[in-house]
Amino acid sequence: MTYCVALQTKKGLVFMSDTRTNAGLDNISTYRKMFSWEDPGHSMITMMTAGNLATTQSVVSMIEERMKAPGDRTPSILGLPSMFQVARMVGGILKEVIANNANAGMVASSAFNATIILGGQVAGSEPRLFLIYPEGNFVEAGPDTPFFQTGETKYGRPILVRAFEEDMSFEAAVKLLMVSFDSTIKANLSVGLPLDLHVYEAGSLKIGTQRRINADDEDFATISEGWGDALKQAFESLPDVKL
Amino acid sequence: MTYCVALQTKKGLVFMSDTRTNAGLDNISTYRKMFSWEDPGHSMITMMTAGNLATTQSVVSMIEERMKAPGDRTPSILGLPSMFQVARMVGGILKEVIANNANAGMVASSAFNATIILGGQVAGSEPRLFLIYPEGNFVEAGPDTPFFQTGETKYGRPILVRAFEEDMSFEAAVKLLMVSFDSTIKANLSVGLPLDLHVYEAGSLKIGTQRRINADDEDFATISEGWGDALKQAFESLPDVKL
Repeated sequence: MTYCVALQTKKGLVFMSDTRTNAGLDNISTYRKMFSWEDPGHSMITMMTAGNLATTQSVVSMIEERMKAPGDRTPSILGLPSMFQVARMVGGILKEVIANNANAGMVASSAFNATIILGGQVAGSEPRLFLIYPEGNFVEAGPDTPFFQTGETKYGRPILVRAFEEDMSFEAAVKLLMVSFDSTIKANLSVGLPLDLHVYEAGSLKIGTQRRINADDEDFATISEGWGDALKQAFESLPDVKL
Repeated sequence: MTYCVALQTKKGLVFMSDTRTNAGLDNISTYRKMFSWEDPGHSMITMMTAGNLATTQSVVSMIEERMKAPGDRTPSILGLPSMFQVARMVGGILKEVIANNANAGMVASSAFNATIILGGQVAGSEPRLFLIYPEGNFVEAGPDTPFFQTGETKYGRPILVRAFEEDMSFEAAVKLLMVSFDSTIKANLSVGLPLDLHVYEAGSLKIGTQRRINADDEDFATISEGWGDALKQAFESLPDVKL
């Protein structure tokens, strides 16, 4: 499993992903699931992947190869004029990789599938955030649905729904993501530390603050411990139900 | 889907279940999923069902028919000398119903399956709580795992894990269940009001406080609204993360 979340706030985009991959319970590894590219002053793109690791690695490699050998038929995602076109290209690559595997003689129901959260900004337009499906099509975040989750989405969702605000500070947004990840990590063994964080400031058109949150991260420990106490206090502050 | 939770506290057992059943998104109904039987002074048994409605209704009917026509081959569950034997009998009935359907010419992967939470007390021993699987076998709650959930368990689990205490009052336990159900109902359309509640006091050997929580229930509304605010305050009480 996996857990990735991207928030679209007025100040910019905030991405967080875990790094645990597993094939069964007895075969776990650590892989980065967050990838960022920039052409400072022109565009910044961040992608988070969930699903079959061979598929997602292949998608990332194809994106990077296109950057090294740009041409008419294979433009670099950093050269495209809008985030919509970036989403279309990434969706196309994802669909192609899945189809290639599926046609290679293997039969797998959903084993080659992957889902991608894609966010970023191209000069001349606002930051945009997309959720790309294995079929290559995608949906975009908006005021009604200002965040996307992939992977093990359920444990960490209630706090996102309750505490997200579009005008929250980056510091509060990172805190919110840490709480959401902490609840998920405590409940599902297939989501695990370290976490990757990227805070993209709207209009900056370059990669922003990046951070790897390891098991010994003091901020994460403070949030994790503090959240347990705060939650209990919140619970106790509610009136008891009369029976 | 469904959501049922049973808590085993020092004071007794607290059960809560929703009432929504659905076959697809456009075919929803309301059915009771909680059933209680008592032989005052001797035994009290409560059962909550999740899964295929035809299966669970059949299990309940078979249990009730055995009560009306007791005999050597079909003893009533209220006549058994221990909760372990009650769990074995209910597990056996559940397995039999599923097997009968599966052998009737239909092929269904898990469509006839059901899971049962069973709790109660028989005179001479402590209250006990079991989770019965479709295969008819079961596990028992204990100090390390003092509650069981079935159905849509994920959204409502973090607060149970954080706030449950074995020596909590019944009032606090009901409040905890309301918070857990509120989070789940807000997130999954296939879990819905009204809710059924049963509070069984250890040693009483009779059905305790029962209550149906409807959409206009004032306590539930207070908890639901208050929890949103309390959660936000808890979140804001945590220190912001420095970037």
